Amino acid sequence: MVIVLSSQKKPLKHVAQKPSEFRQDLVTGDWVVIATGRARRPHAYAAGRPVVNDDIATCPFEDLVKSGNEKPVLTLKDKNGWTVLAVSNKYPALTHGNGTCPIEASQGLYRYMEGTGFHEVVILRDHYATLAELPASRIVPLIAVYRQRFSVLKKEPCINYISIFHNSGREAGATLTHPHSQLIALPVVPPDIARSIAGSDRYYLGEKKCVHCELLSYERKEKKRIVFENAHMIVMAPYASRSAFELRLFPKRHGPHFEEMTSGQEHAAAEALHAALWKLHKGLKNPAYNYFVHTAPTKGHQHDHYHWHIEIIPKTQIWAGFEIGTGIEISSIAPETAAAYLRSIK
Amino acid sequence: MVIVLSSQKKPLKHVAQKPSEFRQDLVTGDWVVIATGRARRPHAYAAGRPVVNDDIATCPFEDLVKSGNEKPVLTLKDKNGWTVLAVSNKYPALTHGNGTCPIEASQGLYRYMEGTGFHEVVILRDHYATLAELPASRIVPLIAVYRQRFSVLKKEPCINYISIFHNSGREAGATLTHPHSQLIALPVVPPDIARSIAGSDRYYLGEKKCVHCELLSYERKEKKRIVFENAHMIVMAPYASRSAFELRLFPKRHGPHFEEMTSGQEHAAAEALHAALWKLHKGLKNPAYNYFVHTAPTKGHQHDHYHWHIEIIPKTQIWAGFEIGTGIEISSIAPETAAAYLRSIK
Repeated sequence: MVIVLSSQKKPLKHVAQKPSEFRQDLVTGDWVVIATGRARRPHAYAAGRPVVNDDIATCPFEDLVKSGNEKPVLTLKDKNGWTVLAVSNKYPALTHGNGTCPIEASQGLYRYMEGTGFHEVVILRDHYATLAELPASRIVPLIAVYRQRFSVLKKEPCINYISIFHNSGREAGATLTHPHSQLIALPVVPPDIARSIAGSDRYYLGEKKCVHCELLSYERKEKKRIVFENAHMIVMAPYASRSAFELRLFPKRHGPHFEEMTSGQEHAAAEALHAALWKLHKGLKNPAYNYFVHTAPTKGHQHDHYHWHIEIIPKTQIWAGFEIGTGIEISSIAPETAAAYLRSIK
Repeated sequence: MVIVLSSQKKPLKHVAQKPSEFRQDLVTGDWVVIATGRARRPHAYAAGRPVVNDDIATCPFEDLVKSGNEKPVLTLKDKNGWTVLAVSNKYPALTHGNGTCPIEASQGLYRYMEGTGFHEVVILRDHYATLAELPASRIVPLIAVYRQRFSVLKKEPCINYISIFHNSGREAGATLTHPHSQLIALPVVPPDIARSIAGSDRYYLGEKKCVHCELLSYERKEKKRIVFENAHMIVMAPYASRSAFELRLFPKRHGPHFEEMTSGQEHAAAEALHAALWKLHKGLKNPAYNYFVHTAPTKGHQHDHYHWHIEIIPKTQIWAGFEIGTGIEISSIAPETAAAYLRSIK
């Protein structure tokens, strides 16, 4: 049973040490974020990447007040106390600014804009929990918090896309072992999302159908890449896997907006995410992984043919010079083989 | 003094255990490579990523015959023996096929094509060498081999792009410490290259100028992102850096084709690459890194306004769920700060 203890409509204003900025590559048109709020000095990089903190005594999520965080923006409780909470990131990649929308401007030859947006952390109560080992019932409130914070942030005037993601393990970029996810609310639709939506647009224009609905229908007949299925959700290894054992979780019923799933879908999504993470955890012996949601932009209905989903990428390999230099990923196992193996893991 | 000992016009035919294939994502249109030639069984992934081999006794590059490699396709020698050689990769990501070009075909709903192409390894003689610590004079023959193999492979009928890259350190995806680079010759122009070229096309159409020439002229006036400069080359931290301490190496004189640089440029490029790698090595204490060449497609002259360059990405951070899920990289240091620090490293 999930009880909402406190939920603010708007996150608190947060004063970052230094405002971040979007900068555009003059050639490719890609935007990056320069977020110097964490303010590491150059020679600090010589010490290598930040050490992973797994010590409960110094974990900043154990006592949010002591570690200098603002008040949570959302707290879920059960009879034993809080289970999941959301809080503004103390070191945000994007900062709120003064409520105005960022304006593209010139810096000499280049284009930039203020790093306006929101960056929140979603924290599970138990420092020692491993998401993959938690029962599905403990994943339900996590998804509930994603959805609630998404629904609040999408009402902000300058927000066009919200990325929900989870990093687990050092090799996946997590510097704290305490299980936590993140939401970053952006003024722009990011390039990878824009390209996914453009592909969906293209197919819809030609076929008058949702490309992902077609793909799911085909995969359910083929069966060989399906890893898990329940009443509402499907987990499969994609035909064009970007890395070995990549998985994608789709709702069976068409829906553009992650945050608009029903309560039945929410429970099914928790069960399917649990199944996917458990199979990777047991089958590949606790790999580091990232997962993230792909969903429609927050404003407008012109992309309602898009089909939200979650992509799960275990760190079975490193994208090296070839992948980073070309954008073509090489996977060393066929997704059909990976799927057959993961289906066998109970 | 570099002496060519043996150079075959065509690489030897190579029989892979299993042919690889390109597969296209139905939604985004992106191609990936499924290369199962290395034939790891599913449960082998449970042991984690391959262990890094730094032992000279078992290094496959110490005795190529004993480790089952084919004859080198190119060997450079000095008075003490070979210094750099190129050999077909024993575990190729792409395989030569029978000399025919790959044809796009359907697999149910999806598109795929044979993984036709070439994959070579360029090996430096000294097992214990660190590329960053070698003098520029030892980098010259390395670049010479890149160029010579590029020039041979580009004549193959089905090759449209050749990626040259180097991975150093476990976190950059190198599984052997023995210094080596790779060339992968592809039947398609990869998406990241295509986007870079499209940006260059766009600028050229509007301004009748090379976008990179403009950028270099601007940066040389600004000075704050320049890290190193000699008669022919510039090393700079890009305005829209994709990661902390990213560097890019450009020839000052316009040229679309890496392989067509002059001997003077080759020496200057070796000196500039040496300077860049040395500054990262000393300034960041031997970080893992990737570098790769961006150059014009091998066929045709319609992209002669493109300006070849080398991108160097030290592993100062991990691209995690946000970066992988959106395509927007977050960098925690301004490139101007990174450049000032690296300029100070001698």
